[in-house]
Amino acid sequence: MRFATVNAGGERLYGAVMEDGFIALSRDFPGWPSLRDVVAADGFAALEAAATDLAVTHRQGDFAYEIPVPDPEKILCVGVNFPDRNAEYKDGQEAPPNMSLFPRFPRSFTGHGQPLIRPPESEKLDYEGEIAVVIGKGGRRIPEAEAYDHIAALTLCNEGTIRDWVRHAKFNVTQGKNWDRSGAIGPWLVPFSDRAQLEDVEITTRVNGDIRQQDRTSRMLFPIPRQIAYISTFTTLVPGDIIVTGTPTGAGARFDPPIFLTPGDEIEVTVDGIGTLVNGVADE
Amino acid sequence: MRFATVNAGGERLYGAVMEDGFIALSRDFPGWPSLRDVVAADGFAALEAAATDLAVTHRQGDFAYEIPVPDPEKILCVGVNFPDRNAEYKDGQEAPPNMSLFPRFPRSFTGHGQPLIRPPESEKLDYEGEIAVVIGKGGRRIPEAEAYDHIAALTLCNEGTIRDWVRHAKFNVTQGKNWDRSGAIGPWLVPFSDRAQLEDVEITTRVNGDIRQQDRTSRMLFPIPRQIAYISTFTTLVPGDIIVTGTPTGAGARFDPPIFLTPGDEIEVTVDGIGTLVNGVADE
Repeated sequence: MRFATVNAGGERLYGAVMEDGFIALSRDFPGWPSLRDVVAADGFAALEAAATDLAVTHRQGDFAYEIPVPDPEKILCVGVNFPDRNAEYKDGQEAPPNMSLFPRFPRSFTGHGQPLIRPPESEKLDYEGEIAVVIGKGGRRIPEAEAYDHIAALTLCNEGTIRDWVRHAKFNVTQGKNWDRSGAIGPWLVPFSDRAQLEDVEITTRVNGDIRQQDRTSRMLFPIPRQIAYISTFTTLVPGDIIVTGTPTGAGARFDPPIFLTPGDEIEVTVDGIGTLVNGVADE
Repeated sequence: MRFATVNAGGERLYGAVMEDGFIALSRDFPGWPSLRDVVAADGFAALEAAATDLAVTHRQGDFAYEIPVPDPEKILCVGVNFPDRNAEYKDGQEAPPNMSLFPRFPRSFTGHGQPLIRPPESEKLDYEGEIAVVIGKGGRRIPEAEAYDHIAALTLCNEGTIRDWVRHAKFNVTQGKNWDRSGAIGPWLVPFSDRAQLEDVEITTRVNGDIRQQDRTSRMLFPIPRQIAYISTFTTLVPGDIIVTGTPTGAGARFDPPIFLTPGDEIEVTVDGIGTLVNGVADE
């Protein structure tokens, strides 16, 4: 079963996503105001039990997806995590010994089906398709061997970037990665129970149907258990935290000449077993 | 009047800091659960009115300071913001056209009077004394000329850093800047009403009484109104957001050989009109 956060008639709800629509469940769990609380309470089984035999409460078109965990304490993104991505920088440097990390604020993401926003300040809106993991059980200095036990759910991310603002300053990509609603997370959470859901799955990003990025998680320079171990060395991970695990080669900035996104484009990020995150593009 | 968030007997309270102690006020304002809500409601005058003629509820020693806004949506720090700081990097690069920015998670800070935590992974804990501004009125694309109207309060920051982890990876200082309780914010909020509180004030950082950093805000490469305008270009600022505005030259890493903090050290960050933030150092 897949779980989403949606907006229906101005109200934020969470529930189960079915073939024919959405089953709102949040009103039945007042102790868990958001999917962050569900994740913290290891509550997916309770939601699934509650949803069984219920009819959909909202048909397709009667709700809009929001980011699945609307209020995470933190979102950390892993940069330069596939073999050819390091070479793309053409700076003659070897792959680094540790992963590059940058935070994104939740407001820099929108939900499935919503447009990525291209601001008037730049025409260089770019896509990056990725898998995002949602932390269930928190912890500090989590051993790599136990890292999978701390993942509650999987989802997808289009880690949309305003490319020229990434290098606006001397250090740090902060401002290129945090434009309001420049990226997307969703469509939903898929509960995580088996490492086979992550260890060798394909990530594909299509723009208007053309494959632009395609690679497998088995080729990550820093596999997901290592990410969880490394990040939790310095900061306590808490339930609902999101780690965006890295994008394959092939973002628009790497083409010669670069191909940036424009209104009318449709970007699809697909991973087997999770689903497809679809977003358009709109000028602000 | 100065307003703080404290812990007393395991309970988080906010209130007014007086010469002889603390006046708890949060129970009188159930609609404002934290100082973030007070700031959002422009509520300092109401707190001040409520505190008038009240005796202290907690004497010095009966409460511990927490970071003044315990739950900000975001904390953004400005890097390399004083003239000599850029030269300190000795990389032959001119001062950049835009400010370097990096987020810190609230859990990377502790309160006034608490020790900064040196983790077992590094002996390179360093100080950086700074002024922090707290946003009152939110906004996007705030003009520089109106930026001061969006500041609700001032406080101090020791932007403590695990120096060798700042350059752990190819890009971004994230992991060196986000160790749990490696920095401090406080002691309190001073309501902001006059630009003279910010435009040419001295920032001094002392370690065990010796002056290590001393400079004036008038020498910032990117003055605070420009920071607010630039940051709000890409992200919506909301009440309670904190901008840590940059540190003068003289952090321990810049000495030859470097002088890092060790248990027993006492670091004081002082700004006229705001106060002094004092922290020790403890091994985790």
